Amino acid sequence: MNFKITAIAAAMFSFTVFPANAGSEIETLINMLHENGMVSDEQYGRLVAELKQNQTQATVEKTEVKKQLAEATKPSDVEVKVKGGITVKTRDGKFSTKIGGRVQADAASYSGEPDMGNGTEIRRARLYLQGNMYYDWGYKLQYDFANTGANGKGIADAFISYNGFDDLQLKVGNFKDPFMLQEQTSSKYTLFTERALPSAFAAGRHIGVMASTKHKHWTLAGGLFGESLTTKGSAEDEGWGIGTRATFAPINEKTKLIHFGVGVNYRDTGDNDDSTQFKQTPESHIAGINIVDTGMILDVSDYLKVGVEAAATFGSLHAQAEYITTSVNRNSGSDLDFDGWYVQTGYFFTGESRLYKKGAFGGVKPKGIVGEGGIGAWEFGLRYSSLDLSDSDIDGGEVDSMTAALNWYPTPTLRFSANYVDVLDVDGGTNDGDEPSIVQVRSQWAF
Amino acid sequence: MNFKITAIAAAMFSFTVFPANAGSEIETLINMLHENGMVSDEQYGRLVAELKQNQTQATVEKTEVKKQLAEATKPSDVEVKVKGGITVKTRDGKFSTKIGGRVQADAASYSGEPDMGNGTEIRRARLYLQGNMYYDWGYKLQYDFANTGANGKGIADAFISYNGFDDLQLKVGNFKDPFMLQEQTSSKYTLFTERALPSAFAAGRHIGVMASTKHKHWTLAGGLFGESLTTKGSAEDEGWGIGTRATFAPINEKTKLIHFGVGVNYRDTGDNDDSTQFKQTPESHIAGINIVDTGMILDVSDYLKVGVEAAATFGSLHAQAEYITTSVNRNSGSDLDFDGWYVQTGYFFTGESRLYKKGAFGGVKPKGIVGEGGIGAWEFGLRYSSLDLSDSDIDGGEVDSMTAALNWYPTPTLRFSANYVDVLDVDGGTNDGDEPSIVQVRSQWAF
Amino acid sequence: MNFKITAIAAAMFSFTVFPANAGSEIETLINMLHENGMVSDEQYGRLVAELKQNQTQATVEKTEVKKQLAEATKPSDVEVKVKGGITVKTRDGKFSTKIGGRVQADAASYSGEPDMGNGTEIRRARLYLQGNMYYDWGYKLQYDFANTGANGKGIADAFISYNGFDDLQLKVGNFKDPFMLQEQTSSKYTLFTERALPSAFAAGRHIGVMASTKHKHWTLAGGLFGESLTTKGSAEDEGWGIGTRATFAPINEKTKLIHFGVGVNYRDTGDNDDSTQFKQTPESHIAGINIVDTGMILDVSDYLKVGVEAAATFGSLHAQAEYITTSVNRNSGSDLDFDGWYVQTGYFFTGESRLYKKGAFGGVKPKGIVGEGGIGAWEFGLRYSSLDLSDSDIDGGEVDSMTAALNWYPTPTLRFSANYVDVLDVDGGTNDGDEPSIVQVRSQWAF
Repeated sequence: MNFKITAIAAAMFSFTVFPANAGSEIETLINMLHENGMVSDEQYGRLVAELKQNQTQATVEKTEVKKQLAEATKPSDVEVKVKGGITVKTRDGKFSTKIGGRVQADAASYSGEPDMGNGTEIRRARLYLQGNMYYDWGYKLQYDFANTGANGKGIADAFISYNGFDDLQLKVGNFKDPFMLQEQTSSKYTLFTERALPSAFAAGRHIGVMASTKHKHWTLAGGLFGESLTTKGSAEDEGWGIGTRATFAPINEKTKLIHFGVGVNYRDTGDNDDSTQFKQTPESHIAGINIVDTGMILDVSDYLKVGVEAAATFGSLHAQAEYITTSVNRNSGSDLDFDGWYVQTGYFFTGESRLYKKGAFGGVKPKGIVGEGGIGAWEFGLRYSSLDLSDSDIDGGEVDSMTAALNWYPTPTLRFSANYVDVLDVDGGTNDGDEPSIVQVRSQWAF
Repeated sequence: MNFKITAIAAAMFSFTVFPANAGSEIETLINMLHENGMVSDEQYGRLVAELKQNQTQATVEKTEVKKQLAEATKPSDVEVKVKGGITVKTRDGKFSTKIGGRVQADAASYSGEPDMGNGTEIRRARLYLQGNMYYDWGYKLQYDFANTGANGKGIADAFISYNGFDDLQLKVGNFKDPFMLQEQTSSKYTLFTERALPSAFAAGRHIGVMASTKHKHWTLAGGLFGESLTTKGSAEDEGWGIGTRATFAPINEKTKLIHFGVGVNYRDTGDNDDSTQFKQTPESHIAGINIVDTGMILDVSDYLKVGVEAAATFGSLHAQAEYITTSVNRNSGSDLDFDGWYVQTGYFFTGESRLYKKGAFGGVKPKGIVGEGGIGAWEFGLRYSSLDLSDSDIDGGEVDSMTAALNWYPTPTLRFSANYVDVLDVDGGTNDGDEPSIVQVRSQWAF
Repeated sequence: MNFKITAIAAAMFSFTVFPANAGSEIETLINMLHENGMVSDEQYGRLVAELKQNQTQATVEKTEVKKQLAEATKPSDVEVKVKGGITVKTRDGKFSTKIGGRVQADAASYSGEPDMGNGTEIRRARLYLQGNMYYDWGYKLQYDFANTGANGKGIADAFISYNGFDDLQLKVGNFKDPFMLQEQTSSKYTLFTERALPSAFAAGRHIGVMASTKHKHWTLAGGLFGESLTTKGSAEDEGWGIGTRATFAPINEKTKLIHFGVGVNYRDTGDNDDSTQFKQTPESHIAGINIVDTGMILDVSDYLKVGVEAAATFGSLHAQAEYITTSVNRNSGSDLDFDGWYVQTGYFFTGESRLYKKGAFGGVKPKGIVGEGGIGAWEFGLRYSSLDLSDSDIDGGEVDSMTAALNWYPTPTLRFSANYVDVLDVDGGTNDGDEPSIVQVRSQWAF
């Protein structure tokens, strides 16, 4: 009977108490000794009472330890990371915010005609706050402190996005039109310090709404846009535009890529500014001298840009090409056609591959990091670009140039670049016959 | 005797050791068996020695576990939160810092006279750093990237506050004069995308000092202010002003509010700019066209603004009204009186109540959040406003307008608004007889 | 034999299991009782089996507890601090980022000639993001929201640094030339609200590269610099310069310092702007009126500045003096020599010492903090400064002034200053014979 009672008591504690349970053999022993008559009934009673009391106390203590351990090992609700920028996110994915930025410090030396002044420049100095809220909503504000002025000049991205649909992202605010591969690729990640000559046709950023869908092997985006945000309101209607871009990547593996794309961008000039201008520097921003320039084309009703893109990556070798044509409709005077193209290739001596993600190129993760025993990533690049801004009565000039680049990425957050630009020929326009050359260097941190 | 010793030993450990204590019955048993002659003295000695050694070791181990548990369950000194913005604070309240901001992306379409151009705009794009230091001191810096220019234009708040007194807050730096309910309510939280017509009399922000006291049922604030920070120093004295505002809320419950307020704002124009201008857009900022405008009133010595306010909330229904009168003293020419008023009401279809705190309205917390199964908060608003800028020789014009708003708050951090403004009549001024109407939409993130 | 087996079993568990080990006496007892014939072989078998099972379970449970404890007491990888600004760093020192800033809100009242308008000003409103990446690389971006304009005006620091060499730091980007003690000392930490008159010769910030080495008792820095970043590129070459500074501190203890320094700064004006101007306000920025001014000196080819510095700290008393001379070479016309000097002293009534670090002065840590029962740090300062901008055909004027300061630092992050500037005499220039005096106050938060 005694045995039964203690057996029940033992069973009661066995699933919660570990020192007591671990010592259940003492109960068995006490019962045995009592059965064998080695301890008296009175002694047995005292022993069982003490045993029970100790078991109870052990249960309480063990429960407390377990509770405290559970508390202590519970992951914190919020995760904080620092890797240049700061990222804070909740573990459930409900909220996240990143503070990041970039600085590009440039210097350039010019030779030949036209006169361009040697000098230095902070090309971009940006900070951004970006994140997601309540799972499905995203936001961003990015400002360029190197490109300031009145009316909010300097605001790069300022938008809300909705990511709650399976296959569709919606965006409203100020952001880039979906047009041209080299424009969709961040200036942090371009192979050369300046984009190729046809960036004269870049669509830029506008306030608008956009829908996009992004898949491993294809993307599609289309939007309706107003004017750029520096356009000051007036009595006349602002311009507006629509833009769309489709990309297709039949092969998209980590070190192997085939990419094709097409973009169409239409823009109505509105009532308050019916003039348009296309111009371009010789792939160097510091002197600010344009090598080709249509000047103000007056009385423009609208224009249409069409671009086709191709890119490929095979291990450490990568290549990219685009052709863009722009048709300008004038209210008076004939229509105008301008175009441009470039082809470029790059190679990582240190074995890295160019990162591709959802229709654009991303950054480089060096295999060895300087500061951790590595030498960083080293990349060589070569580009041929061409731009023709002459048509009909507009003599903007035509230019071809060849550019070589050496990029050193000591860490994923740093990049030092040296570019040599050789303008092969200018045909027409103010700088007809000029063939300047440029050495340009950049120091960049970005994250 | 042996029993006594072990009893003392047991007592010694009982309050610190749990596996040993949990097993104190083994001691009792050993003593009993020894007393009963079941184990020899030599065996007893060995048992007691082993027991003590085990007890000591258990104590050490248990102490270590407890120490580690205490260390592990100690709350961290710093708490990090992310909910759009990032907040870091020490648990003792000594320090806290919040990084937050807002973006408002607008588009508008205009009908009727005068000519106003359809367009888009980033209305505000702000970031701020705000916090408290050493318990009693507060600070803030807020910048508007959408409203930039020379001389620090774009700085919104930039101040130090002292909160160490029980009932009084002191502030020094750049911040809003205490004047008008709709101005004290952040643009994040106004019922309509633009404030009512009498915001022509808004006092704005100046560099100054202010004392205020804030209670559940009343607030009082008064300050001495210099010029706004974009005023460039010169050989002439800058203007200065004093401002005070008192509010009284006899009923201030979570869903029930009665609020009254009065504000007085005096401003001396100083020596370097003795002209003053009052003007107003038709409750739409994008085109930037003023519907009424006094033009530059020259030779002004000073002016005095007086405003009275009333507001009420009954559950999901809320209402608000203000009347402001401005008296301008001229050194030559008669004095001028301008005034304006508005009355507005709003209703949440989804059951929310407008938040009120210390003399101003705050944000909305939707009952159901989009992304968590809810539909957000939906609010309808209606406003009538009037502004008279004509007096004596000044024919600025008088305008009345009616505005309807539909606001959708999918989350506490987001808001999408559509406003329809119907200008009922312009009487006098450049736009005499005009009756334009405006459709305006806004997408906003703010935290 | 039984004994041996259990002894081995006990030895097996003794180093891992604590409840089981703590109860090893039960094993001994069971063996004894079996040996003594108090329990039967069958009972003994059951006891040993139960004992072993319990020991095994205890081992498992204890191991689990230890694992969880180790997990729970492991320090987190990232450390977050808030003390006004926010600092996030990884514990291994690989990454760190700080967000900080400063706001200075000023007001001034002027007496005497020339006319200077009383007024207010946000003198500086800065935010910065600064940190290190991958151990050896540093970066910074600092922006002044109070000093904005076109072309990135407002960017203070924007650079990359490499700190991987033992004794040498490399820097590239936009930062201060190494010249003059009062310029190397942050405006957060200067004794007076404005630097002394010879700051007319400050070298300022440029885009460039610099190498420096910093030791307890000496520092050496030298760099090659382009133009300041607001210089817009053009057809003409920008200016460039070289700068170097050496400091020597034979005594550098916590409350005792002797410091000497010399700086040399050469600047070629380049092709795009061969004019130079030196000018200075009467140690007050608000009115923006210059008390001495060379006007535009045309046709300048280059100029050379040389400065010598001395400073000392003895407990709460500190002193500092500098002499700077500037030689301007003109392409036509004789060379010009300008110079200036100042001597200043300060004293902490509350016992603090001025912080010195690597060739410049730092902030003050009050012994008692307001909000924690202290009264903050109180400091008195006195300065005599002189500036001569007249030479040859250039009559910029010569000025001497005496300035007294009272500084209150209620916390390490706050400072309230009152300055009285007495311009003793202006000799020559537009303001010949003027002797204005100025009362100026500042409220500052900085971290």
